Amino acid sequence: MARSPSGESVLTRVVRILDAFGPDTPVLTVSAISRRAALPVATTARLVREMIGHGLLARDGRRRVRIGTRMWELAERASPVLGLRQAALQYMGDLHAVVGHSTQLGVLDGDEVLFVERLTAPGAVVNITRIGGRLPLHASSGGLVLLAHAPAEVQERIVRVPLTVLTTQTIGDERALRTELAEIRRRGFAFCPGHIHPDATGIAVPVRQNGEVVAALGLVVPNDDTAWPLHRPLQLAGLALSRALCADPVTIDFREGQAD
Amino acid sequence: MARSPSGESVLTRVVRILDAFGPDTPVLTVSAISRRAALPVATTARLVREMIGHGLLARDGRRRVRIGTRMWELAERASPVLGLRQAALQYMGDLHAVVGHSTQLGVLDGDEVLFVERLTAPGAVVNITRIGGRLPLHASSGGLVLLAHAPAEVQERIVRVPLTVLTTQTIGDERALRTELAEIRRRGFAFCPGHIHPDATGIAVPVRQNGEVVAALGLVVPNDDTAWPLHRPLQLAGLALSRALCADPVTIDFREGQAD
Repeated sequence: MARSPSGESVLTRVVRILDAFGPDTPVLTVSAISRRAALPVATTARLVREMIGHGLLARDGRRRVRIGTRMWELAERASPVLGLRQAALQYMGDLHAVVGHSTQLGVLDGDEVLFVERLTAPGAVVNITRIGGRLPLHASSGGLVLLAHAPAEVQERIVRVPLTVLTTQTIGDERALRTELAEIRRRGFAFCPGHIHPDATGIAVPVRQNGEVVAALGLVVPNDDTAWPLHRPLQLAGLALSRALCADPVTIDFREGQAD
Repeated sequence: MARSPSGESVLTRVVRILDAFGPDTPVLTVSAISRRAALPVATTARLVREMIGHGLLARDGRRRVRIGTRMWELAERASPVLGLRQAALQYMGDLHAVVGHSTQLGVLDGDEVLFVERLTAPGAVVNITRIGGRLPLHASSGGLVLLAHAPAEVQERIVRVPLTVLTTQTIGDERALRTELAEIRRRGFAFCPGHIHPDATGIAVPVRQNGEVVAALGLVVPNDDTAWPLHRPLQLAGLALSRALCADPVTIDFREGQAD
């Protein structure tokens, strides 16, 4: 692999440049990219130019740079996330119509929940999840559902690290987390009033394909006494989506797929 | 930029590897990637290994390779497509509920329409569009809408190249295409019975942000006499989405955005 004088590969630097962009920084100058990626300006400018040539980045009217449509296309069209999202969208739309609050879909990625879809409405209760955003497993209702059904080694690793606390309600110690995970497996859903924000309650259920939990479907609703009964429509939507995934297994497969 | 003995940059080879994956080939062996990317097996294996290390690719249980969740995350979270998709999904859901056929959203990318969202239902009429898929501008209803509102130089380039014909109804010559584009601008929508498949009618309307056409919203419905009246709910949905984009301009901006 070709390497810079610092021994870093071209690919590492390309990923650092892509990583400079995010939901709050969708458009950056070359010098801002260079700062955020911790790369020399000349190196950044040269790589950005080549990435623009491939459509991975694009220049806007004011010579600033954003992620290119081609990058999105390469990532999306063969993504394992695509089938899951496509299957889930109808059920998320139904849930959104019936419940009237934000709904999101998350998958386990590394030691975090990665949100792959979200439907929301203007005026919905505060909801910090975003498509392509992440949250710690122990802090969010979707993360807790995924953790409760994760392989034993993932569970053991997560419960032992110091748990970041976002509010007075966030689960902050190993014993409480183990108890909560057992309760989620028993009860079939996670119910998290104020765990991320005092005004919001997260509720989440597992989405299964052929018995295996492949995602968590969640609601973010107000933190008041209207929240609890909403676990029922959410459970129904989760079961309906799980049935659809089992009936049409080609729509999602994180483990194996079609060979050339 | 680091180059191989053939003079090709690392980035070019990485893009060729990503390009080997598609909707019909989401999972590939290293040797299949090497064939499809026209790269030596050893080079492919080395690059694939490094790309897996960065999460751009992932290995499945049978040592085959797919696009990684990290690739999706890097592309999606700062994508200019994201805001548009997010804004459009609610209106597409409403349209899908009212009309009961497939609906999709396309943007102009190069000389093609790139489909960035799609809602469909089991049993819907044949629809070859896919998320991340592309169609020629002159052949599809969404492409015609985008072409009708594209810059003059794009229109002049497209109408002069030989036009690929998919059915007896596809627009195949320059004069017919120019007439159709003028009619779409006058009438406000494209109506394409049998242009892509004899059994399907495509209908599409422009989606505007502050007067500028940023996308095409479309329906694919049966090619019979039920098709024509469906331009009205589609037009309503397109106007509603355009109003939402203008009211909340931060949700989409293909031209410029927030600097660091």
